[in-house]
Amino acid sequence: MKKVAVIMGSISDWEAVKPAVDFLKELEIPFEAHVYSAHRTPAEAGAFAAAARQEGFGVIIAAAGKAAHLAGALAAQTTLPVIGIPVKSTALDGMDALLSTVQMPPGIPVATVAIDGSQNAAVLAAEILAVTDEVVAAKLAAKRASMHDGVLKKDQELQGKL
Amino acid sequence: MKKVAVIMGSISDWEAVKPAVDFLKELEIPFEAHVYSAHRTPAEAGAFAAAARQEGFGVIIAAAGKAAHLAGALAAQTTLPVIGIPVKSTALDGMDALLSTVQMPPGIPVATVAIDGSQNAAVLAAEILAVTDEVVAAKLAAKRASMHDGVLKKDQELQGKL
Amino acid sequence: MKKVAVIMGSISDWEAVKPAVDFLKELEIPFEAHVYSAHRTPAEAGAFAAAARQEGFGVIIAAAGKAAHLAGALAAQTTLPVIGIPVKSTALDGMDALLSTVQMPPGIPVATVAIDGSQNAAVLAAEILAVTDEVVAAKLAAKRASMHDGVLKKDQELQGKL
Amino acid sequence: MKKVAVIMGSISDWEAVKPAVDFLKELEIPFEAHVYSAHRTPAEAGAFAAAARQEGFGVIIAAAGKAAHLAGALAAQTTLPVIGIPVKSTALDGMDALLSTVQMPPGIPVATVAIDGSQNAAVLAAEILAVTDEVVAAKLAAKRASMHDGVLKKDQELQGKL
Amino acid sequence: MKKVAVIMGSISDWEAVKPAVDFLKELEIPFEAHVYSAHRTPAEAGAFAAAARQEGFGVIIAAAGKAAHLAGALAAQTTLPVIGIPVKSTALDGMDALLSTVQMPPGIPVATVAIDGSQNAAVLAAEILAVTDEVVAAKLAAKRASMHDGVLKKDQELQGKL
Amino acid sequence: MKKVAVIMGSISDWEAVKPAVDFLKELEIPFEAHVYSAHRTPAEAGAFAAAARQEGFGVIIAAAGKAAHLAGALAAQTTLPVIGIPVKSTALDGMDALLSTVQMPPGIPVATVAIDGSQNAAVLAAEILAVTDEVVAAKLAAKRASMHDGVLKKDQELQGKL
Amino acid sequence: MKKVAVIMGSISDWEAVKPAVDFLKELEIPFEAHVYSAHRTPAEAGAFAAAARQEGFGVIIAAAGKAAHLAGALAAQTTLPVIGIPVKSTALDGMDALLSTVQMPPGIPVATVAIDGSQNAAVLAAEILAVTDEVVAAKLAAKRASMHDGVLKKDQELQGKL
Amino acid sequence: MKKVAVIMGSISDWEAVKPAVDFLKELEIPFEAHVYSAHRTPAEAGAFAAAARQEGFGVIIAAAGKAAHLAGALAAQTTLPVIGIPVKSTALDGMDALLSTVQMPPGIPVATVAIDGSQNAAVLAAEILAVTDEVVAAKLAAKRASMHDGVLKKDQELQGKL
Repeated sequence: MKKVAVIMGSISDWEAVKPAVDFLKELEIPFEAHVYSAHRTPAEAGAFAAAARQEGFGVIIAAAGKAAHLAGALAAQTTLPVIGIPVKSTALDGMDALLSTVQMPPGIPVATVAIDGSQNAAVLAAEILAVTDEVVAAKLAAKRASMHDGVLKKDQELQGKL
Repeated sequence: MKKVAVIMGSISDWEAVKPAVDFLKELEIPFEAHVYSAHRTPAEAGAFAAAARQEGFGVIIAAAGKAAHLAGALAAQTTLPVIGIPVKSTALDGMDALLSTVQMPPGIPVATVAIDGSQNAAVLAAEILAVTDEVVAAKLAAKRASMHDGVLKKDQELQGKL
Repeated sequence: MKKVAVIMGSISDWEAVKPAVDFLKELEIPFEAHVYSAHRTPAEAGAFAAAARQEGFGVIIAAAGKAAHLAGALAAQTTLPVIGIPVKSTALDGMDALLSTVQMPPGIPVATVAIDGSQNAAVLAAEILAVTDEVVAAKLAAKRASMHDGVLKKDQELQGKL
Repeated sequence: MKKVAVIMGSISDWEAVKPAVDFLKELEIPFEAHVYSAHRTPAEAGAFAAAARQEGFGVIIAAAGKAAHLAGALAAQTTLPVIGIPVKSTALDGMDALLSTVQMPPGIPVATVAIDGSQNAAVLAAEILAVTDEVVAAKLAAKRASMHDGVLKKDQELQGKL
Repeated sequence: MKKVAVIMGSISDWEAVKPAVDFLKELEIPFEAHVYSAHRTPAEAGAFAAAARQEGFGVIIAAAGKAAHLAGALAAQTTLPVIGIPVKSTALDGMDALLSTVQMPPGIPVATVAIDGSQNAAVLAAEILAVTDEVVAAKLAAKRASMHDGVLKKDQELQGKL
Repeated sequence: MKKVAVIMGSISDWEAVKPAVDFLKELEIPFEAHVYSAHRTPAEAGAFAAAARQEGFGVIIAAAGKAAHLAGALAAQTTLPVIGIPVKSTALDGMDALLSTVQMPPGIPVATVAIDGSQNAAVLAAEILAVTDEVVAAKLAAKRASMHDGVLKKDQELQGKL
Repeated sequence: MKKVAVIMGSISDWEAVKPAVDFLKELEIPFEAHVYSAHRTPAEAGAFAAAARQEGFGVIIAAAGKAAHLAGALAAQTTLPVIGIPVKSTALDGMDALLSTVQMPPGIPVATVAIDGSQNAAVLAAEILAVTDEVVAAKLAAKRASMHDGVLKKDQELQGKL
Repeated sequence: MKKVAVIMGSISDWEAVKPAVDFLKELEIPFEAHVYSAHRTPAEAGAFAAAARQEGFGVIIAAAGKAAHLAGALAAQTTLPVIGIPVKSTALDGMDALLSTVQMPPGIPVATVAIDGSQNAAVLAAEILAVTDEVVAAKLAAKRASMHDGVLKKDQELQGKL
């Protein structure tokens, strides 16, 4: 089974990234997580992405804030799908990271999820693996069913508050 | 081989979407394209997405403008990866479509590409298929090499203009 | 008398929605409140809206944050007026929910109120019922008169602070 | 049958407003259209709104650009539902009109539609009348069906272009 | 000597407005302060502005948040200069109030100051009176000199921290 | 009678500024117009503002685009009221000039009008002079009456188009 | 004398970049211009920056649009000052390129100029070289004097138009 | 060795500016820090910049918030490179200061760093000095190596948390 790589640009992004790791663990999807900065360790970041396919990775998730170049820098070195998580930082409410991640030029896409949307990055990674992996697909379907039921349960609980 | 679905919310999005179709043709990736509106044909849009996996689709691309709900509406009905193209319309410079596409709630991601980034939506779809399809992976690598060489050729041509 | 439906995309929106419910109670307008998610329970959300008119509803209020598709998804299934409350969440200060709610395509409007404007959603719902319901119209007129007097009373109190 | 009022802040908004008038004509909903400015003719604008309910109006549509106060100024004088159309002007891409229209304070809502969304303003007005008017409701349902069929027809035509 | 009117749309704006009142007191400029809402007390707000010139006012300051129509509504009723203070509220960081205040249509200007810039509104009011009032002009010049000296004193204090 | 100064940061702003000059001519208010750049001729700009009061000016209008510092730079050198016109340029739709003009720090206000709102800058200047000049006040009142009548005339014309 | 490097992410940026080259030519500052993409030729872009100091460059100018990573990618490979030109493209009015260029993380600055501000990028590069190069400093001073005189000449010409 | 000037528009910016001073101290780069306001002490600010080159300065750093004119005002008086730090204040999340700093007109650039990016301002100042100062260049290279190693160390620590 293909692994998922979770790369963050700074250890300070760990809290924002942790829901992605938790989701991958929950679905028993093998992963590695690393701190590689597009600007402070460009060589290591680039080398990781360049080797990722042959190292058994199927998807790369990258989280970064501000001028969030990390996802794009990794995408430049691989044809694996790269998922970008724009991380909200102290100014501009995450808009800088969102635009820096999503507005990639033709030829090198980054699959961008919501600001601080790390759980969804992991869900998307699982969906990508599940295109050809029926076990993961079944787990995702079960999660959807569970979410569905959770909403309806909350609807019932709400009736008691009205 | 899995097919790619290209769904647009309105036939008026066709010009914006066409580069996605062209890229898929170029890479010989099987696809279907449809006009389904999240708001005017919600049943058909939903039914398409719900059946997509068993109909042999591996990825769904959805393009819409303004309050661009289409990608999210399709994602709500499938665990296949859904790629969203925010289409720029007459007001707000595409920001409305971008935020409506990318800011999805936990559990239901949309892999968002740049505003009017339909070519990249197709590249990303190909990358997703290429996780387990070495033929597509090789074609993507060749495209990357070609893009790389194209840039360097332009660099040489530039020297003549200085 | 027609009922008002108050739908929220997540139970976490309850606090933001509660002023709408309180206002409806105050005006003794019959209502139901539900948690239905456009993305996690699309079938239930759609079915509710599709049946709403014949179930005796006159207006639907929908509250959601981020890529707030809920109001639009309900509007796609009914010709009842649908009022959208964009809920502010952790990033982008509610702009994402506002644009996702208000920028609806031609043919399927959502009557959008201010970000976190749930009280106004209920006022608007009452105004809609009051088009043909003189009792509600009288209550709304009384509320307006009360608001008017409240402002003038505050003006008098202010004089003591200067 | 209640009438719809269509008020524009300037005759220069007429082109932006005309689709609303056309839709009302198409559905045979009685209407009046006027040019009243919140800032240049505040008395006339206010008087119109204050008298609207007893003059037989059921809904007021107001269109204005820039610091678009018109809808709010009318809403301040009536408890009829007021629909606001933010009109895009030369700067800021309509964002100024949108925020000036939608961000109304508690107690005085404006039912805001999309920037330059005049057709949807008329649809929403019709939906409001249709809460208790089955003839209008039937016409709206027919319009929806027609839109639905139009999308599917475009989908079929698209197949010929692929 | 002409008076300055300080109008706020809600008593909740009092804290934001108080620096304006304090500055007017400090410069011994006569003023009145009132709570008048453009939407909840449109008649009183309009009547106040319409009578302001003959009541001895020279300038009107208006503070409001969200869809801040108050300054424009007052300006519509007088040819006295009206100064608008956009008040920051819970969403959109004050941008809604800024655009609603400043983007006035041709013919009816509002002299807009910074978001929550109530002190500057009072300074501007004083500057307007000082066009023909040498006493106020002298006080303003003294304030400027004091500010100037204050900065240089802070510069000296800074040297001790380096 | 006090004069009005109209300062533009670049001759390229002349077209945007011309409506201000035209309005001042129409009201027979004496004025001077100059090209002074805050960045290219800071000394001349500053000297003009510093001397303006004793040179017989009552108000200064300043128009500039992009990082529009001109109005603030003039305001720093005088206690005369300074009116800022944010000029829209090729990027950012005028938002840069608006924020650079309006968000002045405490103590040094700029009376900001709408983006490209040069006519309103002149109206505001006239209103400031009219605080103590009854002739100008009468002309402004006549203009308002004319605008009012113009709107009502357009309303009548509109009836013919419906 | 140190050279200036002018790097553009795509040959399509050439028109936006040309004013920088023209200015460098005018000041007789030696330069090289290249097309290197951060995403399509990351190795070449990185290698150029890594070698730039020892190749005799003193400053690097980088121009790119959308998710403009180029300046940051070059800055990651050198301690030479890197100047970023955000290039306006078809959507978002250049805001995406601005934020992607300027919001760099701690440790790796990019000296950002205005959107499409390529001339200023060259001026800034010249200013950097002029810190220790009196000949360039003198040329810059002469340019400033020329700009200053040009403004005053336009001011004189304006007098004829009033 | 050339000195660096660190100018802040208000002592309230000191906390935001301090990381710049700390970095200069760490690299043993001589500097002066001052509080000079573009609006409250325009003469002192201008005189400082005008004399800076002959006083032995090589670079000027300027920090200001809101309508942040300080960097531009200094740049108008010198051909030394001026680095602008947009300081985030209470409204608009720093966007006002960013646009006021970066969007400078042709001829007078400001080298803008990230919102509240004072450390990067100092790094950029050091990079500018290091163009011709090998000692500073070596220190910067050592800092980069240290940052690089710090990231990799954090990556190792992360492995223990997974």
